[in-house]
Amino acid sequence: MWDRIIECVPNISEGRRREVAEAIAHAADGPGCKVIDLSMDPDHNRSVITIVGKPSSLADGVLALAKKASELIDLNVHRGEHPRMGAVDVIPFIPVRGVTMADCVDLSRRVGERIAEDLGIPVYLYEESATSDERRNLATIRKGEFEGFPEKIAKPQWRPDFGSAKIHPTAGVVAVGAREFLIAYNIDLATSDLSVAKEIARAVRYSSGGLRYVKALGFPLAEKGIVQVSMNLTNFKKTPILRVFELVKREAEHRGVMVIGSEIVGTVPRAALYDVARMALQVRGFSDNLILEERIEDAHAEDALSEDR
Amino acid sequence: MWDRIIECVPNISEGRRREVAEAIAHAADGPGCKVIDLSMDPDHNRSVITIVGKPSSLADGVLALAKKASELIDLNVHRGEHPRMGAVDVIPFIPVRGVTMADCVDLSRRVGERIAEDLGIPVYLYEESATSDERRNLATIRKGEFEGFPEKIAKPQWRPDFGSAKIHPTAGVVAVGAREFLIAYNIDLATSDLSVAKEIARAVRYSSGGLRYVKALGFPLAEKGIVQVSMNLTNFKKTPILRVFELVKREAEHRGVMVIGSEIVGTVPRAALYDVARMALQVRGFSDNLILEERIEDAHAEDALSEDR
Repeated sequence: MWDRIIECVPNISEGRRREVAEAIAHAADGPGCKVIDLSMDPDHNRSVITIVGKPSSLADGVLALAKKASELIDLNVHRGEHPRMGAVDVIPFIPVRGVTMADCVDLSRRVGERIAEDLGIPVYLYEESATSDERRNLATIRKGEFEGFPEKIAKPQWRPDFGSAKIHPTAGVVAVGAREFLIAYNIDLATSDLSVAKEIARAVRYSSGGLRYVKALGFPLAEKGIVQVSMNLTNFKKTPILRVFELVKREAEHRGVMVIGSEIVGTVPRAALYDVARMALQVRGFSDNLILEERIEDAHAEDALSEDR
Repeated sequence: MWDRIIECVPNISEGRRREVAEAIAHAADGPGCKVIDLSMDPDHNRSVITIVGKPSSLADGVLALAKKASELIDLNVHRGEHPRMGAVDVIPFIPVRGVTMADCVDLSRRVGERIAEDLGIPVYLYEESATSDERRNLATIRKGEFEGFPEKIAKPQWRPDFGSAKIHPTAGVVAVGAREFLIAYNIDLATSDLSVAKEIARAVRYSSGGLRYVKALGFPLAEKGIVQVSMNLTNFKKTPILRVFELVKREAEHRGVMVIGSEIVGTVPRAALYDVARMALQVRGFSDNLILEERIEDAHAEDALSEDR
């Protein structure tokens, strides 16, 4: 039915009032545009909303969501551990099927322009949509947060990509962009020693010498009495999950610690799991054509075609 | 579109004349019933045809295929390495989606009855459809082959399940049944020593003390100068692929030999690959709900529903 699919994962600055988060998330629902996940985090007072849709339908859905967030969230009274600068804090678009990264960049720019014009919220384009290298990194844009932005936005080098150099009084500013699919992946270690998780996080993450598309932190899981390496895999095509798992496991072994298990948070694309199977089994000549269900879908399509005639 | 899917994998006694094999295979094509693969083997003079379809449509397709095979193949002039007893030699039905093994057994019996009545070919029910333990094993039924069957079929204990105790003069007899999905899986070893492949095959296969749902043989790959452990995995849910791979790899290591790679012949169900990924990554709480595309399909369905209203 949907030949072309883009995913959008808006992060909003509300993670405690369920009815508010749900009202904002489902403002995006409409024909060709569906909310498939809402993850609320009370500590961070922040929610992650996952939307999928046809490129032609997604812009209206995301705009409706941003409008609802600007009506229901006032950043002047918002408190939470996670850095934030807007009611809708960040809106990334991710290519899923039948679309390119360039399509997502285009869409992010159109949505950004409309957010500025229709809602009066200044917009920064980030990651693949960024208009300068300085604006690729979300953390750099967000530095100073909501409270510091009235001053920051007035500086010439921080003039927004869309909208005036003046923050929205309650909704702040928003970053809109395009990026690859992000896999949130955690590995649990059979130790209560937090320093082991932190050392391994440092060993595997890009920022301190590790794998190019890995962000990692060490956390304690107090209830279970163990520790966890918590990761974002920002490009599973270039840094595959199994390679990350194997590296963490070896680093743990070097410290006399076993891996208890791992956890995928949110969703993972099929292609990433096929890659794990292909690598673990050393399969030569792997292609989607080997997969029974892919063949069946082709047969479906052929059958539907013959019914149309 | 197709909520319930059964796979059918007829083996026919023709692996050399492409136009004949194709004519027989595509006799099965029709609304709700599609041929998705045809693998010809000239040495065995045998072809494997893969069909998927709705339970309600599959019987007609398979019957048309059996009829065409009985018209175009004369077993009196057939030569090939593989044992065979019929023009269509064996017709297994496999549950794929929204159906049970019992549904496949029912279908196999209905198809068997029609093959005997409409085409005059005696039918033996085998595997899950067998009417006695003695008839579960295809090799036991087939023993004696086409040439020996006029005598065998006359014995009271080998009276066919459907049809008279007299073979079809050119098409012989056929086994029809239901079974689990079979994965054809080969592992290449970095040695030219055939005895290593044969020893490992003996170590991993059920018949000589190995894993319950593994059949295995050692083969030389003359052109490459290496050897191969060639396997049929007859129940990937109970004997998962990764466990088989790891066992073969360890057995090879014990003999100082590396695994070069592996090969999936034909198709493999998605669930079998998800299992590999889950095991290789030690994922806790794995479910299909973690997979992006599954969520998208749900969103599709919801969207289609709202369009209907």
